[in-house]
Amino acid sequence: MRRARFSASGKSHSGLVEGDVLLDERGRMHRFADVEWLPPVAPTKIVGLVLNYREHADELGLRTEENPILFIKPNSSLIGHLGDIVYPATATHVHYEAELAVVIGKKGRRIGKKQAMKHVAGYTIANDMTARDFITNTFRPPVKAKGFDTFCPLGPWVTSADEIPDPHSLELTTRLNGNVVQHGNTSMFIHSIPEIIEFISEFMTLMPDDLILTGTPKGITPVHPGDKIDISIEGIGTLSNRVVADGQRKQN
Amino acid sequence: MRRARFSASGKSHSGLVEGDVLLDERGRMHRFADVEWLPPVAPTKIVGLVLNYREHADELGLRTEENPILFIKPNSSLIGHLGDIVYPATATHVHYEAELAVVIGKKGRRIGKKQAMKHVAGYTIANDMTARDFITNTFRPPVKAKGFDTFCPLGPWVTSADEIPDPHSLELTTRLNGNVVQHGNTSMFIHSIPEIIEFISEFMTLMPDDLILTGTPKGITPVHPGDKIDISIEGIGTLSNRVVADGQRKQN
Repeated sequence: MRRARFSASGKSHSGLVEGDVLLDERGRMHRFADVEWLPPVAPTKIVGLVLNYREHADELGLRTEENPILFIKPNSSLIGHLGDIVYPATATHVHYEAELAVVIGKKGRRIGKKQAMKHVAGYTIANDMTARDFITNTFRPPVKAKGFDTFCPLGPWVTSADEIPDPHSLELTTRLNGNVVQHGNTSMFIHSIPEIIEFISEFMTLMPDDLILTGTPKGITPVHPGDKIDISIEGIGTLSNRVVADGQRKQN
Repeated sequence: MRRARFSASGKSHSGLVEGDVLLDERGRMHRFADVEWLPPVAPTKIVGLVLNYREHADELGLRTEENPILFIKPNSSLIGHLGDIVYPATATHVHYEAELAVVIGKKGRRIGKKQAMKHVAGYTIANDMTARDFITNTFRPPVKAKGFDTFCPLGPWVTSADEIPDPHSLELTTRLNGNVVQHGNTSMFIHSIPEIIEFISEFMTLMPDDLILTGTPKGITPVHPGDKIDISIEGIGTLSNRVVADGQRKQN
């Protein structure tokens, strides 16, 4: 099952994806071309992992740690599939980061590894956009670097967990203007999804629709206004967004 | 005007504080003793400042920076006035941090300093509880250190901005088991409220009920299960919470 949120004729809907159409709450069909895709969930928090693929840690020259290193991305950074990513006027080093996003389905605290997968509703694709200009000092949490409006494209939809029998063997591919720039497989995770859920929920409650961004594989390169970013994850689909200059965003 | 959220006879209410009673949506009176205080707002994000009082920066041996250093506290850490703060079983260095919390009233992006105060709905008191055990490496955002469930006591209520003519001259006092341990005045802010709002909203949209925790003055000392923390801010009131051992929390 694929759940989506979308706007059609000025109204917001939650619905299901059936083949190449969307069905809204009342069963009415909408063609993909007629809707504006919204982020497929409205989380209470977005928790990201700084490093979760060993090769990406090498690429950044950073040592990996025993425990996941977490950050929180503000909900105000979310946009949907085909939404415009605004390149900040004050930035010069902006990167995509393709990530498998885990969508929580059931509230929980102190969720053990063995129970963890029962708390997963499904999976979607996230682009953890990062302006490295604002990581000038590693003391600082990357709130600004990762927190700009439009810096968390998400979607197009949530594929339910039953359709992804093994989330630890999914191919991820990022295309920048059609060229493959990032390629990885979730089998290269340093921390598995059950380990991450156990670690996070040991100290904080996970709520339905909360998102966990599971880190990005190696292959980050700079983007610029005018670029098109397509992130595909096996079993889910493709999240596509264009980068636009500041002031050029079509408003949602 | 003082806005509060509370639970009475198992139902949640939004209401007003009039003297020593609460009036719910339908004008019914509730005595303070008969309600459970909820966090007075339900924000989409809680943004904190790492350092905003020069003496506290000295106390931690840290240099202050030109721009505010931000972190995000998860919404799941919120509790209300008189709620129990759970001392994590895995922690040994837990501190209170008394803070003036700014409550946003109007959505905005790129809010200039001169317009900033028009976006403030009011003020409340926050206790930015921090388990310093989990700040072992300054590279890490303090997601765990500041993100435990119950680590953001807030309240008792929001005092509207019109009742606080100068938020930059308010006394803050923290009492630990009745003894004054922290004392400061918001006149000692490094970054003023308009400066903070301008800095944050330059890159992300602030939504109604979003919270900005404006940093804590010097005087942090460890707390332990059994301790009572009372934070008073001039013109607002007193936020009181008890620290309990893990597993001893009364459930909301």
